[in-house]
Amino acid sequence: MIYAGVDIGGMNIKIGLVDIKGTILADNSIKTDNTKDYKGILEDIVDDIRKLCKHVGADYHDIAGIGIGVPGVVDSRTGTVSYSANLGWRDVPVVHGLEVASGIRAEAANDANCAAWGEYKFGASRSMDNVILVTLGTGVGSGIIIDGRLFDGVASAGGEAGHMIIVKDGKQCNCGLKGCWERYASATALIEQTQEAMDKHPESLMHEIVAENGKISGRTAFIAAERGDKAGKEVVEGYIDYIATGLINIGNIFHPNAIIIGGGISNEGEALIAPLEKKVNDGLLASEHNPKVRIIGASLGNKAGIIGAAALVM
Amino acid sequence: MIYAGVDIGGMNIKIGLVDIKGTILADNSIKTDNTKDYKGILEDIVDDIRKLCKHVGADYHDIAGIGIGVPGVVDSRTGTVSYSANLGWRDVPVVHGLEVASGIRAEAANDANCAAWGEYKFGASRSMDNVILVTLGTGVGSGIIIDGRLFDGVASAGGEAGHMIIVKDGKQCNCGLKGCWERYASATALIEQTQEAMDKHPESLMHEIVAENGKISGRTAFIAAERGDKAGKEVVEGYIDYIATGLINIGNIFHPNAIIIGGGISNEGEALIAPLEKKVNDGLLASEHNPKVRIIGASLGNKAGIIGAAALVM
Repeated sequence: MIYAGVDIGGMNIKIGLVDIKGTILADNSIKTDNTKDYKGILEDIVDDIRKLCKHVGADYHDIAGIGIGVPGVVDSRTGTVSYSANLGWRDVPVVHGLEVASGIRAEAANDANCAAWGEYKFGASRSMDNVILVTLGTGVGSGIIIDGRLFDGVASAGGEAGHMIIVKDGKQCNCGLKGCWERYASATALIEQTQEAMDKHPESLMHEIVAENGKISGRTAFIAAERGDKAGKEVVEGYIDYIATGLINIGNIFHPNAIIIGGGISNEGEALIAPLEKKVNDGLLASEHNPKVRIIGASLGNKAGIIGAAALVM
Repeated sequence: MIYAGVDIGGMNIKIGLVDIKGTILADNSIKTDNTKDYKGILEDIVDDIRKLCKHVGADYHDIAGIGIGVPGVVDSRTGTVSYSANLGWRDVPVVHGLEVASGIRAEAANDANCAAWGEYKFGASRSMDNVILVTLGTGVGSGIIIDGRLFDGVASAGGEAGHMIIVKDGKQCNCGLKGCWERYASATALIEQTQEAMDKHPESLMHEIVAENGKISGRTAFIAAERGDKAGKEVVEGYIDYIATGLINIGNIFHPNAIIIGGGISNEGEALIAPLEKKVNDGLLASEHNPKVRIIGASLGNKAGIIGAAALVM
């Protein structure tokens, strides 16, 4: 029995065939053809699934289900995408469309929820029943597992911890609010913080690193900090403090077994995870009386979306 | 079949007999005798339950269970109070102690969780499966109902939305953090905000209202605002904005059916609830695509704790 997992984004669609143990048999990435309507895009996906089947020598009819993760508000009960800014979708019956295009049973969920589900079923948080996944990427996403089940609120409209306000009347966010966590803790925000520090510190190593790499990135300040650069260290410390603020809020609200950190920034590993775990547990209410909330790097990397989407139909 | 519900606080203990429909048959309030250890206090409670039985002509042995709500960190699975600052309790086996003292089966939970459970079973949020109760009192408490079950995290250490940071590096909180929601949205915070506005505005009606009532209270600014006082209105608007900030965070994370507002401040009714409902729903992510999160005043008033505690053992 094999399953297909689809992780659709505004630019690319990642597609994989996954077995019951969460192992990817084959995967691929195709462009999101924004000239097509949702039906055209779903046909592209099904074509690619057929190709992947041929590639691994599997029969297309052996696919027991297709799961799809969509960036935006996805009502997983009705299989409808209420709204996806990245795809320009509104009230799109993605599950029905995918079933019609493929002839195979389908399920859909928000992309961060899929990643959380993947990490829960096959990744960093196996055997932990209460886990929050936080993805630090272009934005800040979150997926919530409570008592072994994906929780995403009424009409799947919850699970948006990235839009938690941590600085009242703070920086303007695309969502219309001010001071959202994502404005301070995303990779985008880190790049902004790095740029500001570089403007202030012409002596910083960060200038050299940017020159070496051709552009400023979420890695710039971390590399500089590793090399002992003072301004780089300050950026990293400040950024980690912003992440910790939101994680403390999540910890005090949920007190989960663990918070899993995913997204591009999680590649920084222990330089990120160790100080976060200390800051978060120091900040939790009555922390000396309670079990620690572990902070763990995501283990499925950028395949979590594919694996988690496939796990929706397992 | 009757049940006893106990709502223990640092100053007083509210005790009631409750039937299966959540109706209070008799209730009472006794002083918390802080000269006694926890066993002595539990004996006081059992004595009072016996008195209440006599009062309503019930047989003590008809009591099917005793539920107790405790301010602090209560592990409801083990029946142990890990920590209660108000009671000065640490690792107190309250359920075992109560069962020994009474000879009746007991259950315990955090007080805000009891209130949430009471409102869910018998009050404002009956028939809603995803509900958050927020109590605006001396502090800000919260209780979380997910899919019809009380959720309080690993070792019951979650459900502490009052200590969500909404103003990074903001006002110092007793918990050790800075900028906790409770420092801005509790009745205590409202009184502080009222005092500050009075100092700035000697012309404000608030001075008269305080003179009339003998002291400044959580009602002062609301009364002044009702009477058209500009400074009073500003205090109320600012305070409601602080409450809304935390509620938006809860809304974006949980997207529940409703958020129930309890605690003393909830007596302000529509002057509080109506602007909160608007601000919160305006602030939620993709709100135009999603069902509204209703904001509702608690309906069990200061009896929610008793009723909810009793409902723990039903």
